[in-house]
Amino acid sequence: MHSLPSPAMHRLVLSPTLTASSLSSSRYLCFLPLSYPIFHKFKDSPRFLANFPKSPSFTIRNCTSIKVKSSSEIRKSRANSEPDEKLRALRELFSKPGIGVDAYIIPSQDAHQSEFIAEWYMRRAYISGFTGSAGTAVVTKDKAALWTDGRYFLQAEKQLSSSWTLMRAGNLGVPTTSEWLNDVLAPGSRVGIDPFLFSSDAAEELKEAISEKNHGLVYLYNLNLVDEIWKESRPKPTNKPARVHDLRYAGLDVASKLSSLRSELADAGSSAIVISMLDEIAWLLNLRGSDVPHSPVMYAYLIVEIDGAKLFIDSSKVTAEVMDHLKKAGIELKPYDSILSEIESLAAQGAHLWLDTSSVNAAIVNTYKSACDQYSIGQGSKSKTRTKTRDESNEQFGGPTVVRRPSPISVAKAIKNPAELEGMQSSHLRDAAALAQFWVWLEEEIKNDVKLTEVEVSDKLLEFRSKQAGFLDTSFDTISGSGANGAVIHYKPEPESCSVLDANKLFLLDSGAQYVDGTTDITRTVHFGKPTAREKECFTRVLQGHIALDLAVFPENTPGFVLDAFARSSLWKIGLDYRHGTGHGVGAALNVHEGPQSISFRYGNLTALQKGMVISNEPGYYEDHAFGIRIENLLCVKEIQTPNRFGGIEYLGFEKLTFVPIQTKLVDLSLLSTVEIGWLNDYHSQVWEKVSPLLEGCARQWLWDNTRPVNEK
Amino acid sequence: MHSLPSPAMHRLVLSPTLTASSLSSSRYLCFLPLSYPIFHKFKDSPRFLANFPKSPSFTIRNCTSIKVKSSSEIRKSRANSEPDEKLRALRELFSKPGIGVDAYIIPSQDAHQSEFIAEWYMRRAYISGFTGSAGTAVVTKDKAALWTDGRYFLQAEKQLSSSWTLMRAGNLGVPTTSEWLNDVLAPGSRVGIDPFLFSSDAAEELKEAISEKNHGLVYLYNLNLVDEIWKESRPKPTNKPARVHDLRYAGLDVASKLSSLRSELADAGSSAIVISMLDEIAWLLNLRGSDVPHSPVMYAYLIVEIDGAKLFIDSSKVTAEVMDHLKKAGIELKPYDSILSEIESLAAQGAHLWLDTSSVNAAIVNTYKSACDQYSIGQGSKSKTRTKTRDESNEQFGGPTVVRRPSPISVAKAIKNPAELEGMQSSHLRDAAALAQFWVWLEEEIKNDVKLTEVEVSDKLLEFRSKQAGFLDTSFDTISGSGANGAVIHYKPEPESCSVLDANKLFLLDSGAQYVDGTTDITRTVHFGKPTAREKECFTRVLQGHIALDLAVFPENTPGFVLDAFARSSLWKIGLDYRHGTGHGVGAALNVHEGPQSISFRYGNLTALQKGMVISNEPGYYEDHAFGIRIENLLCVKEIQTPNRFGGIEYLGFEKLTFVPIQTKLVDLSLLSTVEIGWLNDYHSQVWEKVSPLLEGCARQWLWDNTRPVNEK
Repeated sequence: MHSLPSPAMHRLVLSPTLTASSLSSSRYLCFLPLSYPIFHKFKDSPRFLANFPKSPSFTIRNCTSIKVKSSSEIRKSRANSEPDEKLRALRELFSKPGIGVDAYIIPSQDAHQSEFIAEWYMRRAYISGFTGSAGTAVVTKDKAALWTDGRYFLQAEKQLSSSWTLMRAGNLGVPTTSEWLNDVLAPGSRVGIDPFLFSSDAAEELKEAISEKNHGLVYLYNLNLVDEIWKESRPKPTNKPARVHDLRYAGLDVASKLSSLRSELADAGSSAIVISMLDEIAWLLNLRGSDVPHSPVMYAYLIVEIDGAKLFIDSSKVTAEVMDHLKKAGIELKPYDSILSEIESLAAQGAHLWLDTSSVNAAIVNTYKSACDQYSIGQGSKSKTRTKTRDESNEQFGGPTVVRRPSPISVAKAIKNPAELEGMQSSHLRDAAALAQFWVWLEEEIKNDVKLTEVEVSDKLLEFRSKQAGFLDTSFDTISGSGANGAVIHYKPEPESCSVLDANKLFLLDSGAQYVDGTTDITRTVHFGKPTAREKECFTRVLQGHIALDLAVFPENTPGFVLDAFARSSLWKIGLDYRHGTGHGVGAALNVHEGPQSISFRYGNLTALQKGMVISNEPGYYEDHAFGIRIENLLCVKEIQTPNRFGGIEYLGFEKLTFVPIQTKLVDLSLLSTVEIGWLNDYHSQVWEKVSPLLEGCARQWLWDNTRPVNEK
Repeated sequence: MHSLPSPAMHRLVLSPTLTASSLSSSRYLCFLPLSYPIFHKFKDSPRFLANFPKSPSFTIRNCTSIKVKSSSEIRKSRANSEPDEKLRALRELFSKPGIGVDAYIIPSQDAHQSEFIAEWYMRRAYISGFTGSAGTAVVTKDKAALWTDGRYFLQAEKQLSSSWTLMRAGNLGVPTTSEWLNDVLAPGSRVGIDPFLFSSDAAEELKEAISEKNHGLVYLYNLNLVDEIWKESRPKPTNKPARVHDLRYAGLDVASKLSSLRSELADAGSSAIVISMLDEIAWLLNLRGSDVPHSPVMYAYLIVEIDGAKLFIDSSKVTAEVMDHLKKAGIELKPYDSILSEIESLAAQGAHLWLDTSSVNAAIVNTYKSACDQYSIGQGSKSKTRTKTRDESNEQFGGPTVVRRPSPISVAKAIKNPAELEGMQSSHLRDAAALAQFWVWLEEEIKNDVKLTEVEVSDKLLEFRSKQAGFLDTSFDTISGSGANGAVIHYKPEPESCSVLDANKLFLLDSGAQYVDGTTDITRTVHFGKPTAREKECFTRVLQGHIALDLAVFPENTPGFVLDAFARSSLWKIGLDYRHGTGHGVGAALNVHEGPQSISFRYGNLTALQKGMVISNEPGYYEDHAFGIRIENLLCVKEIQTPNRFGGIEYLGFEKLTFVPIQTKLVDLSLLSTVEIGWLNDYHSQVWEKVSPLLEGCARQWLWDNTRPVNEK
């Protein structure tokens, strides 16, 4: 599964800045809207939420008896509601007392900047009818507009009613949301937002941009206008219980993790931190949840202080086991909705609060800042200075302050410990076994001329996976694309419209699973008949890129983007390329997309690749209306024992986690170097060695047949 | 010749910012002082000024009869003056009326941010005794400190008297100049600078940094304190005449260049531009000069308005021919020293003045800003707003404004036109002929056991080059290093201390020349005896990096740093690396280092490589106390006719300009791929084809012998 550039979509379309780097990357404009803030903290994009699959249901305790609903079961249509009526109701609220706005912005986000969000929070989809994963709706008293990017233009055209204007973000001349607001509103208007749904940085950026026309940004803390009109038809919040993530998979107990975090707090001169990213909370507390499809997380906030910690979570999710687990770690429970009052009391206590303003929402950050002002003013003569430059340098005054820094959990979580790595390795082998069973089944069906749709095939893959020990869920919606559909990078087959697999075309399958001990993500591209020379050349060049990255050795402190060109070089030689990144981080039994590392042509992410990080290696090539190719393994960064260590530093490389055959029929051996052929044969020999013990019968035979060495030309 | 990261050294040591990227590049700390502003506009570093060789003398008109002084002739010692007396005299000035400062900063710069500067401007060397190319001196009433980087620690230790403290920039715990000033001065002190010697951006940065302790930055416009005490012993300004750069080499006449520039001015809403970079003036006006060693430029400023242009230059440099040439282009002449009064009158006329504040000095920028304030205030009620936010958005008010943008000449100059490219190609072949003659001579001498020093060898090379048509000068001081000296990246052999070439060690020779039609820069590493396996492996891996970059194909809009890893990959595989960039821009019959493009591990330079740009390809490897290896060719960026054009864009690659054999004795063929061996043989076949017609006798035979194909293993 590959990653896209977009941070939360509203950042894309709201940002008014046109950076030099975005200009110089015009070849990627399709995926890089003009306003893309290249140097912002990297975040993978929301990608797989179109049509809102329900959260798969499964039992927690007995991992071998899990029953997950298949993709085809859980889809439902939600087109053709009455957008005009919704817009009318929404606009009616604009002039209500305590509201008084001229426009309202509805982003895709939940309050935690999650990539996948619960249905309960899909307000933008509800109000606009557009169900793509990325988009921002803006409603004024007489206009309604929706911004989305190139992936979703066709879908949005279909789903939006005539009351809406589609804004094709990234196309020349299309304004950003703030430019548009500055254009259509009378100067001095009031623009309303739900401050929980914007990161503090995004809200500040928006505020600045619309101040150009003297518009004010109005934070509506106490009600979300869409929720007001959504009412009965709104899905209920999931009340699925959280569970303890076993120490043998987590590797480090909560006490140790909290202790390290508290050292970092102390070093930074802060006394407390608010953590709002759901996977960071899950990782830190060794908890997992089921609130969000594909991501084993639960909705919560966490405040860690030097001498205590509070988890803000709905009590319905807290089982006796979880309660016991949290108590042992000294963590107090609080209602999810009480986060803001706790934030206020932190200020009252004079906390030096660590806030990652790129992820913590504006409601929390602003509440804290206001409270700081209040409690500073209460302290007399020094208050003026303190209020003016309320930041780290003011600690000397003793009042509450903001310590504005990136979250310290992000890198700690990304660097896997030995137990996490072992879980990743083990789950990948089980996943590989399921894939072998799947491929032999599929090849047999195709040989027998059985007509299978893309959705049926992905449902069958889920069936094989769900028989593996520890299986919980897919880690994202399977991308199953035959022929031309493979060229649609974010293709999501729908039961009612998807294609039947064509034995004479390439088939691209990008899928992954959540296991109790690890998370997988793999793409293979195969041909069931006789591939054309063109298909073979393109496949071979993608494979050469995959191999070049896999074999890369690099000095410590190298950011991922330095390696990106290795994966493209062979394609570039014949004038080909692909419009997505090459690698994204993957959580250990957590989110399939995680930061902070990446391997991408976008050079804003300076995070160094570090020992223990897991990252995908997934170059591709997509020929419009013809075929798509992607070859994806997950890799773990490890130290390489080089014969020299110039500079007295470590040299790093990769260790493969994924062990599934690559179809050699698609390889044009005449293009490969001796080293590349050696890599392919060595990989297949490892696949056989590691995965064959988990297989029997025809799957084992299939694995044998598909791991035979190829001969040098 | 390779490039180093440092912009003008005072930027390095004055900047208080510690960027995330500089931290993440800690492996390069030796060349990346902690304060290096990674995202600043790229500028090559001053490198070759240690010991101040005099400007070589040559006649201009008859290019075949040029006589240049050799490196050994023009060196002279300038150690052991009386620093204490100088410091005393300097400090005495501090309290004079109209001065009144507590500290004075003396940077390395001239007023034009030149890499090489005239002796006349070498004030920091005069006051401190330290003659390295990069360094900043700061003198307070009771202290004197000099900052330089790792290349010069040893030299500075030798040259500085006990009155000076050496500040080893980049070493842990060493403060920047502004941190030091904030530490040693009483709060509220006055720090003086010559505003001509700081770019506006650098001065602003300094001002901001020292304001922390309420120090004020005092611009001393009317006198340079060092000049005041330097007096008689100060070298005289060169009064060598400028000359017209023939249209057959320039390709575009001045009128056309000015017309394009004026279109850009109009597009940017500006009415005039100040150009202060000497090579930009030389390029724009098709003039060349002799004020600065190695760089064919003359000291001048240029103001181009929509309907006129003024060149500020000492009249002694303007021959009748130059005068005529300038008149035809509608360029008025003004005294060099009248620049500030012209700047003031531009403001009086309400100009919208384009200023590249990263290169234009603080004297000019501040004079203009002050004049803007003055002339805006004179215009009544609107003045307040205009004064407050005096920038592009204020054009509507009609008063004078600053249009703050990067210089438009920089990229225009970097993209060579066909005539410039032809000159570069032709001069490179003549240069290659001289090198062939040199190498055959040197091999013969070594064979005959003649003892030759590194300086004698580089003098002999100059002799061969100066016989080539159109030769003018070396393009930088030759780096001629035998054995361990080759590992000193900035090695500059001195007649009194240099080594004798050792036939049993590697010899690295990095040199270049200025011809009337082009500029060259080439490095070859050779062995006269039997290289060790280690030397061969390292040489081969450097060669593999050189080949990988040479063969790279990449989409348009790719910045150079994306390709840097190609040149390092083969070294990284065995834990080796080199601590300098891989490629720098080269001017056409202009400066051997020019921006804006580069190929480097430093990813702050987002300039895309564009068709027609010339860039060096010079990976290396340096084994301390043993040997140095570097293989350098100059390349021109060209379009590659790829069979596909994914994204509808052009794919680019390189065309070689340099045609000098690479010593195959040093290649371990078993490491090379078929493609790499093919590259080597193809290159040598081109060398023979292109250069042999220029040679006869033993040099021709040498070329034949050294361009024979190698066989695949």
